[in-house]
Amino acid sequence: MEYIFSDRVQNLKPSAIREIFKYASDPSVVSLSAGNPSPEAFPSKEIAEISARLFEEEPISALQYSVTEGYTPLRLFLADYMKSKHNIGKEKDDVIITSGAQQIMDLVSKAILNEGDAVICENPSFIGSLNTFRSYNARLIGVDVEEDGMNVGKLEEVLKNENRAKFIYTIPNFQNPSGVTMSLEKRRAVYELAKKYGVLIIEDNPYGDLRFRGEFLPSIKSFDEEGIVIYSGSFSKVISPGMRVGFTIAPKEIVQKMVVCKQGQDVHTNIWSQIVCHRFLTEYDFDAHLAKLREIYRRKAEYAMKLLDENAAPTITYHPIDGGLFIWCDLPENTDVSRFCREAVLNKVCVVPGTAFMANESDITHSFRINFSTPTDEQLKRGIEILGDMAKKL
Amino acid sequence: MEYIFSDRVQNLKPSAIREIFKYASDPSVVSLSAGNPSPEAFPSKEIAEISARLFEEEPISALQYSVTEGYTPLRLFLADYMKSKHNIGKEKDDVIITSGAQQIMDLVSKAILNEGDAVICENPSFIGSLNTFRSYNARLIGVDVEEDGMNVGKLEEVLKNENRAKFIYTIPNFQNPSGVTMSLEKRRAVYELAKKYGVLIIEDNPYGDLRFRGEFLPSIKSFDEEGIVIYSGSFSKVISPGMRVGFTIAPKEIVQKMVVCKQGQDVHTNIWSQIVCHRFLTEYDFDAHLAKLREIYRRKAEYAMKLLDENAAPTITYHPIDGGLFIWCDLPENTDVSRFCREAVLNKVCVVPGTAFMANESDITHSFRINFSTPTDEQLKRGIEILGDMAKKL
Repeated sequence: MEYIFSDRVQNLKPSAIREIFKYASDPSVVSLSAGNPSPEAFPSKEIAEISARLFEEEPISALQYSVTEGYTPLRLFLADYMKSKHNIGKEKDDVIITSGAQQIMDLVSKAILNEGDAVICENPSFIGSLNTFRSYNARLIGVDVEEDGMNVGKLEEVLKNENRAKFIYTIPNFQNPSGVTMSLEKRRAVYELAKKYGVLIIEDNPYGDLRFRGEFLPSIKSFDEEGIVIYSGSFSKVISPGMRVGFTIAPKEIVQKMVVCKQGQDVHTNIWSQIVCHRFLTEYDFDAHLAKLREIYRRKAEYAMKLLDENAAPTITYHPIDGGLFIWCDLPENTDVSRFCREAVLNKVCVVPGTAFMANESDITHSFRINFSTPTDEQLKRGIEILGDMAKKL
Repeated sequence: MEYIFSDRVQNLKPSAIREIFKYASDPSVVSLSAGNPSPEAFPSKEIAEISARLFEEEPISALQYSVTEGYTPLRLFLADYMKSKHNIGKEKDDVIITSGAQQIMDLVSKAILNEGDAVICENPSFIGSLNTFRSYNARLIGVDVEEDGMNVGKLEEVLKNENRAKFIYTIPNFQNPSGVTMSLEKRRAVYELAKKYGVLIIEDNPYGDLRFRGEFLPSIKSFDEEGIVIYSGSFSKVISPGMRVGFTIAPKEIVQKMVVCKQGQDVHTNIWSQIVCHRFLTEYDFDAHLAKLREIYRRKAEYAMKLLDENAAPTITYHPIDGGLFIWCDLPENTDVSRFCREAVLNKVCVVPGTAFMANESDITHSFRINFSTPTDEQLKRGIEILGDMAKKL
């Protein structure tokens, strides 16, 4: 039989990162291409302990069907916690637990986007989210990321000229892949522009708790008096990605539509993992856990930056970071970055070419992304030395 | 802000069952409306033991990111097991693990359906799947369910006249909600018609292992030499629904598109639950476990049917079942079934009106669905007695 697929998936491709992962599974290749938390960052002992107690005390709760909105104690806890700690969540907002933050992108797209609608995103941006928007046949309009966040002048230009823009997608903290953190001034400006032009904002914040330097900045959602910001939170980087638990805090009407869509998508998120997250957050010292993670990633990030300084400068430059899991590296302007990354694989190191993160494949970039959370120190050293040797030959 | 939602979700409503659940959470109401496995059916001790050992032996595997297709050992096991036990899976097929079988409906819809395409379903059918098809703006065309499965004469008529039909959705074993099992003859006929008219089949089989009487019948997928059947399997009814683990065996090209869609939807299914399922299937006696479940549900089903005979006949009739979790009950032809079910709630028993399961809300039905797996014997008795008292007053 010849299969005829829907228009929306005809041109969808597996993510470029995913394809690169295939090489990365070769044990002789150093992978600096993933975005996995460091194995030492998992609270494995605590989760084992919580899980054992859960099966002792209430096995049926952990195994039976649950409600689509998410485990009620976790939703209530998050509403309180995010409000008191980050001023996130107003009267008109509600909370839904999702199967990772990736599902938030899908549910919002499904609820909001008609085919041909526009999504405004930072350029570069996280390929996983971009591909989800593409899967609903959205047109992606990229706005350049500067050292302090997206170019707000260009953002306004786009908003002025594009009457089918439905939302602005932004990762304000330690953006993936650029590592950039949006300034407070720009956070306010993006919020005001969205308000002025009547578009929503998805504020994706998987790395916000992983700041190891500099001052915490308020989220865009904390300004949200008008109900225009969909806040996307995740436990993937701070507890466990394998559990697939994320959460949205967003206007009730939007959450209600997301709930209906989620019901048809997976009924509810794995309930064992929701209860484990709730117990970890409430029965253990989450702040101390975050402090430990920050220390792990501060050390690894500083080590990676030092290796880049010592081995790859001046041909490869990079954007110093204050948190997150990625470093964005620039090659000289005349370099073909895709070719450089393909050659890197042949030299046994795997990084992601910047092209993978662009709103349009034809957008030009001379950058690539390094991840420092997954590799060991030894792998980081070997990988960056190889990149440095390649750079010297450019 | 006034929110404008996508065309596809403008008219989507939360499932009627879900709304009924709200009443069902009142502890004074006997709920015969759910579809939850019986608490005694969960292998809680075994799962606790497996989970504890998993965190002892390889905690990072259970917590780290995994691949979209699913946990490889589980995929390989299922390919072998389904082939050897049920003759399901040919050379051109592949396996993908999903977040419950519900996700299969979403991924197939996303990969196959354009807006306005038609889906042919049994009438009545499982509301969860129907709502997923609706969420992609599909037109549902219902084909009446007879005592031996869908009316194949009408199916052919539909296929002849409808040139945008993309797939036939069927639950051949102990269909939800009718309890009907499709005869071998009709299974072959449905397969041949799909082949003749070039449409796919989704064969949804969550209850197939719960046959407590009569002879096992081969699945439609077992005939599939042409690559037209998407087989949907689930562990929700035989291990745990809270884990959200399902699987598809389908032509590779379709699985590849499902993988791309799943990547944008939840990256991968909770990895802890995938490993737990794999270990339960391979390290424990799954056949003995299934035999135990069949015995639990045989006893409960027979008890429910006896209660209906003794309390509700002759006004309420029902369709005797050989497996599954539901009994389909008929009221006299002039009865307003929605009103009957609303009054039942006031009388403290909750059942689902047949209207909830129809392809079109205007389709007429005088039936309602009873679930016997979730309530205790005492609740079943009380619930059916109330229904019987109501019937006497009709």
